[in-house]
Amino acid sequence: MTQQIQITKSQNLKEKPEVAGIPFGSYFTDHMFLMDYSAEMGWHDARIVPYAPFEISPSSQVLHYGQSVFEGLKAYNVDGEVILFRPDENFKRLNRSLERMSMPKVDEEFALDALYELLKIEHDWVPDGEGQSLYVRPFVFANEPYLGVRPAKSYRMMIVLSPVAGYYGAQLNPTSIYVEDDYVRAVRGGVGEAKFAGNYASSYAAQQKANDLGYEQVLWLDGVHQEYIEEVGSMNIFFVRDGELITPQLNGSILPGITRKSLITLAEDLGYTVREERIHISDVEKGIKDGSISEVFGAGTAAVVAPVGIMNIHGTDYRVNNNEIGKVTQELYDNLTGIQTKKQEDKHGWVYDVTATVK
Amino acid sequence: MTQQIQITKSQNLKEKPEVAGIPFGSYFTDHMFLMDYSAEMGWHDARIVPYAPFEISPSSQVLHYGQSVFEGLKAYNVDGEVILFRPDENFKRLNRSLERMSMPKVDEEFALDALYELLKIEHDWVPDGEGQSLYVRPFVFANEPYLGVRPAKSYRMMIVLSPVAGYYGAQLNPTSIYVEDDYVRAVRGGVGEAKFAGNYASSYAAQQKANDLGYEQVLWLDGVHQEYIEEVGSMNIFFVRDGELITPQLNGSILPGITRKSLITLAEDLGYTVREERIHISDVEKGIKDGSISEVFGAGTAAVVAPVGIMNIHGTDYRVNNNEIGKVTQELYDNLTGIQTKKQEDKHGWVYDVTATVK
Ligand SMILES: Cc1ncc(COP(=O)(O)O)c(C=O)c1O
Ligand SMILES: Cc1ncc(COP(=O)(O)O)c(C=O)c1O
Repeated sequence: MTQQIQITKSQNLKEKPEVAGIPFGSYFTDHMFLMDYSAEMGWHDARIVPYAPFEISPSSQVLHYGQSVFEGLKAYNVDGEVILFRPDENFKRLNRSLERMSMPKVDEEFALDALYELLKIEHDWVPDGEGQSLYVRPFVFANEPYLGVRPAKSYRMMIVLSPVAGYYGAQLNPTSIYVEDDYVRAVRGGVGEAKFAGNYASSYAAQQKANDLGYEQVLWLDGVHQEYIEEVGSMNIFFVRDGELITPQLNGSILPGITRKSLITLAEDLGYTVREERIHISDVEKGIKDGSISEVFGAGTAAVVAPVGIMNIHGTDYRVNNNEIGKVTQELYDNLTGIQTKKQEDKHGWVYDVTATVK
Repeated sequence: MTQQIQITKSQNLKEKPEVAGIPFGSYFTDHMFLMDYSAEMGWHDARIVPYAPFEISPSSQVLHYGQSVFEGLKAYNVDGEVILFRPDENFKRLNRSLERMSMPKVDEEFALDALYELLKIEHDWVPDGEGQSLYVRPFVFANEPYLGVRPAKSYRMMIVLSPVAGYYGAQLNPTSIYVEDDYVRAVRGGVGEAKFAGNYASSYAAQQKANDLGYEQVLWLDGVHQEYIEEVGSMNIFFVRDGELITPQLNGSILPGITRKSLITLAEDLGYTVREERIHISDVEKGIKDGSISEVFGAGTAAVVAPVGIMNIHGTDYRVNNNEIGKVTQELYDNLTGIQTKKQEDKHGWVYDVTATVK
């Protein structure tokens, strides 16, 4: 550990909520992690303190120029043990996002240690209900009080924790998606592959349009041709085509999801052929029509796997697999959540046992 | 005026700095304007308070999803009178940016009134040196403590003021620009035409690359073909071609600059033909080579007009007008700053006299 973490415990512990009833990301635990960066000192002043508002300058660069990136992962409670799923991948991606946004990288091991320390203090907050977890949100933002348009010289990293219910409770309900032909999320040469704060604000207009039209999620097409499939909402997307799994290849504008990466490995373990391709929306339309595409699902930390039941392509609604969860989708969901809950063998070393480590 | 503005004066007025020596956007006045928005109350609690840090929640949405927009304009001190240049245009653009980012609009007249109130209190801060001004920064950001990926339900608007020196002192020095072939700033269907915070963070990698290669600014090409000229750094761009003015047409990915708009009108007043076109980078290269393009300049609030002396296109350095300020560039600069400093007739009603209005 390169730095000591200063710990200040809260004197006023909150009452823990009924997790089943609270919306995603609205309730936070008693403590949070912070550290600061300056050009002179590098990352310093690592500390765990009571979760509370903090002071920010009116000219802090994050408010003006949006230099901010984040990560999202989940801590699970498996029979009283706290575990994480591939947290090393999240901190690796955090560093790639930081680099893309001209921000200083963090020491991945130290960041993971900091998360362990925080989880040790908050372990009672990790819920154990079906599908429930403690959502972990590391984020880094520019914090220099200066209006010049150039990378900031000071930054803050924080980790906050929020107990969350399963995205769908215990059940996988098919979602509906709207293929967006006008709005564009990202383009090659842009910042689409970074988990950059602004990518999310940029998606709201399309998200609202889809919701207004009665669909739950937006399917984004590429920024150059507006013909190739990128991703859906905050998830990567998979198709089952002639018994094989197909997903858009990483191209610089798609977020490289850890769920995506894990499902590719898992599917191959299960004997499926997985292809990472450039996927034309017309080919998907054709495939759904002629039955060669039998299942469609999104993949991301929040929902794990989200079956797609309705897909609107250029104004036409298509039902996928009769708006029911497909066999392959269910199989992958069961296997991935099986590993995440230690019900299944973890042969790739994806599961990190926090409790065992900090004991 | 729809709301009353509560005023709390600072008890500790700062010493005013020597404006000539301070970097852009690093020094702030004694007071700032704030108001808050909630779904229930709309915009409320308008107030002017001492400039100071304020509290923000660790889960405030601006930090995570980057929902934030801003404006930039200047207050000039003309013989003791405080004047603004087309501030109505800035608040109109603010509302267009807010709308694009799914944020609540402000009452443009009220926002302008609020700025007047603030400037009335801070009028001693408006510097009167050659090229100096008080930079005005209105900004609006998501402020709901909630990690859901959807437009926030609460927002804050602020206006801060910063005394600034002329971008180039009293003199126009030609700048050097690097035509960026890999990184992309914006694409049609995206958020390029909004003054969205994240657009600036997204530009840092390219800006750094240009600086590392020895150029001051990035010239952005379009996101689809990477062939058509968009804008340069935080400025729009103009070319003098065969005695006419050419500038990229607004296409959804270019920021619609108020300086651009004003220069188009002004140039026409002066008898120039102005064309808003789709401009191919190869045509610019050819035009510089064969002499048909005689001048190139950027246009924006910060620099007003910035002559371009060196332009790197696909790896080749081209000198424009022998790296000197061109006749047309100088003429437009003189005329626009002439109007802004009341030395020249303001026949379009662009100059707003704050002092006269609030007296
Ligand atoms: C835009 C986007 N795509 C895809 C994903 C899926 O990534 P992961 O599986 O790492 O959660 C996310 C994050 O949840 C995302 O924000
Ligand atoms: C990206 C960008 N382009 C162009 C401009 C010029 O706009 P204006 O003339 O309104 O300052 C700005 C703002 O300064 C800008 O940020």
